[in-house]
Amino acid sequence: MKVVVIGAVAAGPKAACRIKRLLPDAEVVMVDKDSIISYGACGIPYFISGDVPSLEELYSTNYHVIRDVEFFEKTKGVKVLPQTEATFIDRKKKEVTVKNLVTGKEEILSYDKLVIATGSTPFIPPIPGIEAEGVMTVVNMHDTQKIHNLIKRGEVESAVIIGGGAIGIEMAEALTDMWGVEVTIVEMMPQLLPKIVDYDISLMLKAQLEMHEVKVLCDAQVKEIKQDGNGRVKEVITTKGNLPADLVIVATGVRPNTKLAKEAGLLVSPQGIVVNRRLQTSDPDIYAGGDCIQNYCLITGKGMFMPSGALANRHGRVIGTNVAGGLELFEGIVRSFVIKVFDICVAKTGLSVEVAREEGFDAIPIMVVQLDRAHFYPTKQLMYLQLTVEKGTQRVLGVQAVGINGDAVVGKVNAVATMLKFQPRIDDLSIAEIAYAPPFGAAVDILNTAGNVAKNTLAGKNRTIGISEFLSIWQAREQSNYVFLDVREEADAKPFVERFSPFWLNIPQGEIREKLSEIPKDKNIIIICNTGMRSYEVQLVLDTAGIKNTLNLRGGIAALKMAGIDLLAE
Amino acid sequence: MKVVVIGAVAAGPKAACRIKRLLPDAEVVMVDKDSIISYGACGIPYFISGDVPSLEELYSTNYHVIRDVEFFEKTKGVKVLPQTEATFIDRKKKEVTVKNLVTGKEEILSYDKLVIATGSTPFIPPIPGIEAEGVMTVVNMHDTQKIHNLIKRGEVESAVIIGGGAIGIEMAEALTDMWGVEVTIVEMMPQLLPKIVDYDISLMLKAQLEMHEVKVLCDAQVKEIKQDGNGRVKEVITTKGNLPADLVIVATGVRPNTKLAKEAGLLVSPQGIVVNRRLQTSDPDIYAGGDCIQNYCLITGKGMFMPSGALANRHGRVIGTNVAGGLELFEGIVRSFVIKVFDICVAKTGLSVEVAREEGFDAIPIMVVQLDRAHFYPTKQLMYLQLTVEKGTQRVLGVQAVGINGDAVVGKVNAVATMLKFQPRIDDLSIAEIAYAPPFGAAVDILNTAGNVAKNTLAGKNRTIGISEFLSIWQAREQSNYVFLDVREEADAKPFVERFSPFWLNIPQGEIREKLSEIPKDKNIIIICNTGMRSYEVQLVLDTAGIKNTLNLRGGIAALKMAGIDLLAE
Repeated sequence: MKVVVIGAVAAGPKAACRIKRLLPDAEVVMVDKDSIISYGACGIPYFISGDVPSLEELYSTNYHVIRDVEFFEKTKGVKVLPQTEATFIDRKKKEVTVKNLVTGKEEILSYDKLVIATGSTPFIPPIPGIEAEGVMTVVNMHDTQKIHNLIKRGEVESAVIIGGGAIGIEMAEALTDMWGVEVTIVEMMPQLLPKIVDYDISLMLKAQLEMHEVKVLCDAQVKEIKQDGNGRVKEVITTKGNLPADLVIVATGVRPNTKLAKEAGLLVSPQGIVVNRRLQTSDPDIYAGGDCIQNYCLITGKGMFMPSGALANRHGRVIGTNVAGGLELFEGIVRSFVIKVFDICVAKTGLSVEVAREEGFDAIPIMVVQLDRAHFYPTKQLMYLQLTVEKGTQRVLGVQAVGINGDAVVGKVNAVATMLKFQPRIDDLSIAEIAYAPPFGAAVDILNTAGNVAKNTLAGKNRTIGISEFLSIWQAREQSNYVFLDVREEADAKPFVERFSPFWLNIPQGEIREKLSEIPKDKNIIIICNTGMRSYEVQLVLDTAGIKNTLNLRGGIAALKMAGIDLLAE
Repeated sequence: MKVVVIGAVAAGPKAACRIKRLLPDAEVVMVDKDSIISYGACGIPYFISGDVPSLEELYSTNYHVIRDVEFFEKTKGVKVLPQTEATFIDRKKKEVTVKNLVTGKEEILSYDKLVIATGSTPFIPPIPGIEAEGVMTVVNMHDTQKIHNLIKRGEVESAVIIGGGAIGIEMAEALTDMWGVEVTIVEMMPQLLPKIVDYDISLMLKAQLEMHEVKVLCDAQVKEIKQDGNGRVKEVITTKGNLPADLVIVATGVRPNTKLAKEAGLLVSPQGIVVNRRLQTSDPDIYAGGDCIQNYCLITGKGMFMPSGALANRHGRVIGTNVAGGLELFEGIVRSFVIKVFDICVAKTGLSVEVAREEGFDAIPIMVVQLDRAHFYPTKQLMYLQLTVEKGTQRVLGVQAVGINGDAVVGKVNAVATMLKFQPRIDDLSIAEIAYAPPFGAAVDILNTAGNVAKNTLAGKNRTIGISEFLSIWQAREQSNYVFLDVREEADAKPFVERFSPFWLNIPQGEIREKLSEIPKDKNIIIICNTGMRSYEVQLVLDTAGIKNTLNLRGGIAALKMAGIDLLAE
């Protein structure tokens, strides 16, 4: 059995090694354009930030052996042709033409089975001047080393990052935190992490970036990149002002590398190479995995592009088993995501509310703000969680979470991620048996609470308003007919009452039944507490008293604060 | 609508408040024998340890309001009769007789719906002398305060804890860590956390306790508790020696309080009050929840007793909804568990291998030791995970995990806990879409790896041996026909080779294909690396070379080390 694997970063090596383990006699050859292979590109920002002291660690095993050509040959039994490009696939003859990029020599490799793992390439937007020196992408080890050298030599005082997705944000943190570079992120869309998290959640990560002095320009476009006399980047001209820059990082997304597959006549969609659940292409002897394929979303039922090192590894293993004659299915994806942003973690799985609506779901947001461990345990921190729920079916479509104890945040999201393909309903969250001990959780876990709040909301009992809707009303309060009823204890509410009377009223929850008469009957009322729980209970009491024109601020003052909104600082 | 709730700790208050929220006009009365109610008993060890500075925090809200009689009346609209015992239920008349324990006055409360949440009581083993002063249980706020006072006054130099379950272990940590008390845990069974984790995992937590100078005696029974002239505890006589003690904590489990229900003629099993999935007892107007009920295990399909504050809270809410005329099901439990033991976290869900076998499953252990985040990320720590897998069906029956980054450990276990009721197979773990970024995970998550290793094991490719089996062979190595093949790099293996030659061989994985001739053909071979991954790959290479009498040490040297086993220290 002869196997050729095209691409040696993540899916490729994983498939190649699995094949050799299952079929020790197979002849497996892996080709890659680069000289450095099998690297963890996701680690690049942590090398730039200094957390990873040497670039080699990104392509070493965890027992400190470099994953180079020799490693694959001696330890894994896989032959590697580095700096070699696959230029043509002849499916009839079952041959791949490859070209050594150093010598220019061409060679024909015959195969019984072929694996395409050609990855993705950064999209470079057509901005005038983008060819300037100092405009970089974050994609391979060589460019990474170049960026690192520039910074280390002290040549970078200010940097502009084009694109507010994961890589842009991670690079912003790396440059600011370690090197004190003045960083601006320029994002075309109205928010960071567009299509990944909802707008209200994106405010929380924007606030975190700004707190660490990263400038964030959303709804902004780069019009031109200006160069100095030597062709080096000097300034970035945007629709929201001009930014001096010694370094520009283009992080505007990547596109699947499908040219080779297309030219071979394989089925290719705009989302990538089309594969079945065995990760076979339209030619059953050719498999494909990693960034170059179209993934199948288990929630929307649609194909999509989702580049990810973790997915690539999972693809690789499934391909390996199948090429070796086994049968393993990769059923699809649920779109899990996590990022560290300075002191916080932002994680999600499934669909945000906005994306769910775009996909045709009648979806609503359910926000819960709750301590991540017992309220009496000293290391407790608030966690901010937003569920996406489909109204009619009560299905859980996704969850987003933000908080300081990062492992705890991503742990909750993962607990939903593993359920998602089973199409859980909110009931499944209400009674989810999250392990409990005071150092690690609350007796009623935030996921249980989220299920409960969803149930109350769908029953019409918890009528809510989100951060941005609240802000619009708040800003127009002089012209509108709203009052803000703060049901926290007096000490918490006092500064707000002093500052914003008569708009801001305070009746602590415990006194609400006695003081119903103090509540204006002719106003719309927004009920506020610290997290949205007490305000919900007050809403029920007011309902019973016939006061029904109320809305509960989702996540309360804590959510506002996390989103960088301090009403008292106005 | 009149509702009486018997018991005001966890399930009771939760049900009562939910009923009032859904039916504001209902009359809800809650009775409890104690004067302090609605407390978090799980927090007791953290008050003893000083992590929680005041006992009141255990019965306060997270916004620092004490959950007392007044709080329930004013804030929640629930009437409370403290220090009041329910002595008789007349189901025909729908009345409960209650007795004020201070005044002795009896009163009759009529009900439309009744909720029984009578909790559990510590089991006191019939040990001679157990009535001595200074022998305590950890169950309510009053006893907790007493223990705290004893220690604070410096009256406790050494303590014996009878019972190596969760409470015993948590109290051992509290007493040692904060107060420097010399603590011994005496456990009747051969291991700590019996029936919760497997023996090999229990060794890890025993090692952790011993590292912090807690003495652990397993397979040991307390024969007598000796008192001084004043009736105070002085010494504990066990089958493994005599222990001086100023304090004895009895933590030998609890029993459901079912007397009242039994006397009312309700169906009661040895595991607790029998309820259906609406948490209705055999009388449809009487609901029951919390420690006093029989839970239904979703994995074994059997009823069982499982006391837990978290379950009690979930029960309470389901009862509240159903009493108020809604319909909510509590389908059953998956037996999630977590505990902090000094610097490590031990978590599990589902069945351990031992329990699974007792329940009739043909179950095997799958152990994976892997870093909990990217191997190049600085805060990485090893995580130790053992899966319970049913052979024929490839079903995942449970998982146990141990590690230093506690939130990460419990996060993995929770990700399995939420899946368990959907009867996942190992394939579901292999491709579980755990969110990935280097600060929070590995590109191939430990759960993915566990699924993969399970597949290799069930395919007969990964033939393994566990910690305790290995130890037996190791200890008899002079008389047996085994060699130990260390496939780590030379520097790691060197001290073992020097010490244990000719039993200990070293051939690094990368050299194995060239050095096949050095491997003895007439011996049984145990292959060893740091975590069990390289040794598996070597096992495959040896298989191909026809050397098949090999076993792979699950979890490798790292697992031995975590279990407190240092071969070099012999």
